[in-house]
Amino acid sequence: MANISIFGSGAMGTAVATILANNGHNITIYGIDDSELNDLKNGRNTKYFEDVNLPKFKVTKDKKQAVEDCNYIVFAIPTKALPETYKEVIKLIKKQVIIINVSKGFWKDSNKSCHEIMKQEAQTNSLISGVVSLIGPSFAIDIINKNITAVDAVSNNDKLNKKVQKLFSNDYFRVYTQKDVAGAESGSIFKNILAIASGMVAGLGYSTNSQIALITRGFNELKKFVLARGGKLKTIFGLSCLGDLMLTALSDKSRNYTFGKNFYNKNFDSSKLTVEGLRSIEIVYDEYIKTKLLDLPIVNSLYQIIYKNANPNEIIINLMKRKLKSE
Amino acid sequence: MANISIFGSGAMGTAVATILANNGHNITIYGIDDSELNDLKNGRNTKYFEDVNLPKFKVTKDKKQAVEDCNYIVFAIPTKALPETYKEVIKLIKKQVIIINVSKGFWKDSNKSCHEIMKQEAQTNSLISGVVSLIGPSFAIDIINKNITAVDAVSNNDKLNKKVQKLFSNDYFRVYTQKDVAGAESGSIFKNILAIASGMVAGLGYSTNSQIALITRGFNELKKFVLARGGKLKTIFGLSCLGDLMLTALSDKSRNYTFGKNFYNKNFDSSKLTVEGLRSIEIVYDEYIKTKLLDLPIVNSLYQIIYKNANPNEIIINLMKRKLKSE
Repeated sequence: MANISIFGSGAMGTAVATILANNGHNITIYGIDDSELNDLKNGRNTKYFEDVNLPKFKVTKDKKQAVEDCNYIVFAIPTKALPETYKEVIKLIKKQVIIINVSKGFWKDSNKSCHEIMKQEAQTNSLISGVVSLIGPSFAIDIINKNITAVDAVSNNDKLNKKVQKLFSNDYFRVYTQKDVAGAESGSIFKNILAIASGMVAGLGYSTNSQIALITRGFNELKKFVLARGGKLKTIFGLSCLGDLMLTALSDKSRNYTFGKNFYNKNFDSSKLTVEGLRSIEIVYDEYIKTKLLDLPIVNSLYQIIYKNANPNEIIINLMKRKLKSE
Repeated sequence: MANISIFGSGAMGTAVATILANNGHNITIYGIDDSELNDLKNGRNTKYFEDVNLPKFKVTKDKKQAVEDCNYIVFAIPTKALPETYKEVIKLIKKQVIIINVSKGFWKDSNKSCHEIMKQEAQTNSLISGVVSLIGPSFAIDIINKNITAVDAVSNNDKLNKKVQKLFSNDYFRVYTQKDVAGAESGSIFKNILAIASGMVAGLGYSTNSQIALITRGFNELKKFVLARGGKLKTIFGLSCLGDLMLTALSDKSRNYTFGKNFYNKNFDSSKLTVEGLRSIEIVYDEYIKTKLLDLPIVNSLYQIIYKNANPNEIIINLMKRKLKSE
């Protein structure tokens, strides 16, 4: 039995905490919202999982208390809030730990992934054995409902990956180890961009054929992006790339998809939605499209629509009118 | 303007006829069902597309009349009926034509694809320039509604592919050329197997995470199958493999998916449903699994469930209990 602290009392923090509690570990959840913490103490998280009975968790609002005496620390907080909390927490670590990260996308104000920066920062404290990211097709609500879910434990340290694999795996949650950090991280960044595009196509009234055509052609752009960042071809076929793409780009349960779908809906307020794909579009545009390093017509179109007010129907017409070609 | 005859008055025959009529070609539909033909003559196909207005088509029940004077013949009939009709029709051809095939899966009573046998048979009549298959993510109803759709024109003759590409392409239907026949055909066979598996997972009450995990791991089996049959890796990423898989394995509009979803539903009558994946499971089992040529755990599980009455929950438990591994 391990002592594990989860930073984050949201949907994914609660889902991860529930898996680990089901596996017999000793869990403490750190959060900043009194009502959520009070809920979790009583085996609920009504904000995200209305009627679901959860284990009764130990909770705390004290970072120092959360960190002392634990073997694993899981970070499951929005990327916006991650840098500040993370930097503070790693200074408080006084005992050997493994850090587990579930935040995907680029690190705030950086063009590096969360995993990359977390690993870099972790080197300032020798008590941190390493950072392992969990990446793969996983909606929190499905985990809570014990639907079979498969994800990757990702870091370049296979020994740590195996520890995390063992910690999480049970009869509904299956973890594979994955050493290709660049591949898995790049895929999980890019899939959010394609989820916005797919949602937008649905929002404009197009149906399945059109969404699938977009995602298939988009998958080719994902492949170029992942390879350009040093990822391996094999990884592109796996849970962190293809799997997470299919989940995110084809479901209303995804925030990025929902944002795309409602892009032209004046009654929809997206200001409270964490849409990681938005910043990713800008970064990918600046680093790969403007510089002509990669040919990514779908990302370029999205950039023109979202940031340059281009007309999506005109862009679609232009895409259809391109020279006919081979696949 | 070309003269084009379509064999088949079903959903896909009507959809293909509508694209080609929209493109200004002269269309004749051959069928065997009086009420369907009468409908089509009046610009309707109420059986499949209830309230939709279609072009008013010329129709015929006479194969000879359908064939004379046409430049292209499209086959859009169920695989069960294809061999008899096809063999009869190609004997009637008296003028240079290109044959276009939309039937996927294995040829009846054979372990070769429809495309392969159609090409082989076509060599008996030198007036047939060749056979080009249309393969890709395309529900007929979405085509009828002019949703943007992208497919491959597949044959090893690039000149013919380009002709078919030009014939079909318009502002909602985009055709890519594809010379890798083995890859495209194998992908379109295997995707129906995975659609049955995905439907079954949904029918057993599992949600998105589980379906996507299955399809992602299944895509690895598709890759093995396509490569073993001489297909190219690049094709696996494209419309005929990944695209058609996502469409078919994630939608209630797919027959194979519907069959899998209702496999344990006693009130569901599947006898009238054309489920191409069923025969494919047997053929793939006999040729690749029993012979230990390929390791395909998902197809093997499906075979045990469908043909050996194995308990799906036990199989799922066993899959989850397998040794933890790397991706």
